[in-house]
Amino acid sequence: MNPSAIAGPFFTDLYELTMAAVYFGKRVNDRATFSLFARPHANRPFFVAAGIHEVVDALAQFRFSDDEIRWLQQTGRFKPDFLDHLSALKFTGDVLAMSEGEVFFAHEPVLEVTAPLIESQIIETYLINTVGVATLLTTKAARCVHAAAGRSLIDFSLRRTQGSHAGMTAARSAYLAGFSGTSNVLAGKQWAIPVSGTMAHSFVSAFESEIEAFTAYAEIFPDNSVFLIDTYDTLQGAKNAAEVGMRMKENGHSLVGIRLDSGDMLELSTQVRRILDQAELPEVKIFASSGFDEYSLERLVAAGAPIDAFGVGTRMGVSADAPYLDMVYKMVCLGDRDVRKVSEGKITLAGKKQVFRRSRDDGRFTGDEIGMRDERPDGASPLLKRVMKNGRPVGSFCTLEESRERFAGNLKRLEDRFKKLSDPDLYPVFISERLKELQKKC
Amino acid sequence: MNPSAIAGPFFTDLYELTMAAVYFGKRVNDRATFSLFARPHANRPFFVAAGIHEVVDALAQFRFSDDEIRWLQQTGRFKPDFLDHLSALKFTGDVLAMSEGEVFFAHEPVLEVTAPLIESQIIETYLINTVGVATLLTTKAARCVHAAAGRSLIDFSLRRTQGSHAGMTAARSAYLAGFSGTSNVLAGKQWAIPVSGTMAHSFVSAFESEIEAFTAYAEIFPDNSVFLIDTYDTLQGAKNAAEVGMRMKENGHSLVGIRLDSGDMLELSTQVRRILDQAELPEVKIFASSGFDEYSLERLVAAGAPIDAFGVGTRMGVSADAPYLDMVYKMVCLGDRDVRKVSEGKITLAGKKQVFRRSRDDGRFTGDEIGMRDERPDGASPLLKRVMKNGRPVGSFCTLEESRERFAGNLKRLEDRFKKLSDPDLYPVFISERLKELQKKC
Repeated sequence: MNPSAIAGPFFTDLYELTMAAVYFGKRVNDRATFSLFARPHANRPFFVAAGIHEVVDALAQFRFSDDEIRWLQQTGRFKPDFLDHLSALKFTGDVLAMSEGEVFFAHEPVLEVTAPLIESQIIETYLINTVGVATLLTTKAARCVHAAAGRSLIDFSLRRTQGSHAGMTAARSAYLAGFSGTSNVLAGKQWAIPVSGTMAHSFVSAFESEIEAFTAYAEIFPDNSVFLIDTYDTLQGAKNAAEVGMRMKENGHSLVGIRLDSGDMLELSTQVRRILDQAELPEVKIFASSGFDEYSLERLVAAGAPIDAFGVGTRMGVSADAPYLDMVYKMVCLGDRDVRKVSEGKITLAGKKQVFRRSRDDGRFTGDEIGMRDERPDGASPLLKRVMKNGRPVGSFCTLEESRERFAGNLKRLEDRFKKLSDPDLYPVFISERLKELQKKC
Repeated sequence: MNPSAIAGPFFTDLYELTMAAVYFGKRVNDRATFSLFARPHANRPFFVAAGIHEVVDALAQFRFSDDEIRWLQQTGRFKPDFLDHLSALKFTGDVLAMSEGEVFFAHEPVLEVTAPLIESQIIETYLINTVGVATLLTTKAARCVHAAAGRSLIDFSLRRTQGSHAGMTAARSAYLAGFSGTSNVLAGKQWAIPVSGTMAHSFVSAFESEIEAFTAYAEIFPDNSVFLIDTYDTLQGAKNAAEVGMRMKENGHSLVGIRLDSGDMLELSTQVRRILDQAELPEVKIFASSGFDEYSLERLVAAGAPIDAFGVGTRMGVSADAPYLDMVYKMVCLGDRDVRKVSEGKITLAGKKQVFRRSRDDGRFTGDEIGMRDERPDGASPLLKRVMKNGRPVGSFCTLEESRERFAGNLKRLEDRFKKLSDPDLYPVFISERLKELQKKC
């Protein structure tokens, strides 16, 4: 699924295994339910569910290798009967999860696992990491899409993501959130995401002159050229690009665009647009890439910068203003006992749950209710769907395109006041009466 | 090397391939030298080199697969002769790099590649990403080690790193920087890093009472138990731990420690220490894990908190206060021409370079000089070593333990004023006269 992911049970914290050893030794292995959810985050009024497909694929194949068991044995920490148990272990549980691209909010479970305690516990680290990074990056990308107000965005983050898994996840997440494409070739191949990119400054430097560099590029890619114009002097670069663009036109081809990569983007894009228009090249687009994030995108769009598409890189790819979510995986039910941990204002809701969403007639979301799994409140849609039953995936995943459409719909249906970049209103999330009652009991 | 890394030439931005197509079409393929370096960062007065071994391993095996070539072909962007060229492409270049664990500074090349232009360009995205994330996380971990002033640190970051590659890199980086161990089992197996971890809150909740949970754990791990004491009430938890600890002692075993995971760490650790000492358990250690980073570590150590070891997680694992470095890979030489790009205060030093470091007799570093590759200034040690020649690794890597020792030595030799967490002095980095002359010429 994600070619860069490690997904086996060894991608884990040691304590998952030591706890499992005690559960095994003490024969504590009732079915337990765990909830995966995010705690509130000051800069993230909403989240976007992602990483679910990757996790389901991995759980279906969750096995310890012989090599791993041998390594555990030689640590001297574990008894042979427990290691035998591990080497035969599969994931046999049930999983409910939100669909990828679904908007969700703090405290709402995005995924719930029910499985014998050893299995449901041992997958904790992997689940938090995988759903965590995908949700983190999709949420960040979604904020960029919202801020861009319809302008096209391209993921340029690969070189600065925190490693290869994050690089792949960023490209997929960005596309899911509504980006038009990515510079990431492997992601393009893996998930059929449109790829884009043309030249670096080093390319321009590799030729005797800028004009020569542009001309060489146009010769090889006569209908697919975007010239980077700021290697020496941006406005002169725009004139050089226009000159080559006009020649391309005379030869029956067409320059796709120019790219700005430094300087005052509003000022430069305005002047460059003028140069291109004066050269009768109104069809040549302006691309910009310059440390963008949702905040600078919003400012440039509001200022009316004539930029047709933005390359969004580093800050999106590491979610720079919020580089982690407080995503947690908490036991909420063990056997027939509902479990709640209360510590210093950190809420964990006991019991198997469901998230219900209500909408107005025009589709706009009015609020969510976190209820018990078996509730069926009128006029509300349950968001958690069964994705695994007895360790096997249920049905097939929706495609990335379908998830992308789901998110696009969600983003429209979420009112602007809930997704403002500063001082957003708090989206209403209620707890059902029955779930409240349950909390009192445990 | 890093089991979670993607290392092939497809882990790249599309523009590396479009540029290569033009270079191929226009027969521009002189040997080029590229410098990999970090631009200054307000919160990072020094960096620690890492990711070098991973990169050298990958470059030695750098090949396009048939499948990848077919995919490129069906994009319709590339001509058959260029695709033939790619499918036969190997990395045949020379690489100089700093040793892992070496402290370095802004503008200093941590790695320089010399290879035919197509090869040296195409690896850009991969190099920046891989050396970037390893250097980012090692540098962050190094700051934690410095702040902990000799106390033991354990990497607990796996669940919150930005994906699996970053999770593996964080564990290795933390150990390289001087952490004692990691919770990450796969990293323990991969790099022989000591692993550690015992129980989560869910473990305590899984039993009828806290005492029962501790007793069960002690039964399975009689000489390797650390009890998590804050699930219900921390001080009562400490008393429960002491009670079970005393029983373990009576039976000829020994409680290793307790772990605090929430609340006021100074206050709680002091009170818990008192409880343990009163129970005549002075040997029982106090572990703490609670959103630590270098800043909170420094404060707690300065306040004299009786904490023996710190679990350091999320903020270290994502380098939260600086989640990316401005690491760049710039062409500095093409054929016999030295190349320099000048843009808005961003310095790129033309020419093949070397970094020279000077020390006092007591070993302390006095300053660095960035010079030309062939300079040999008196009394200075060159930091860039040849690690690849004609595409093949030169010699063998030092072990992770050796790199760890190198960094420990470096950290001592770097004066405190250059590594203070706030307002550090700027470490002196000069540019040699000959290198300055060269800049004027190109």
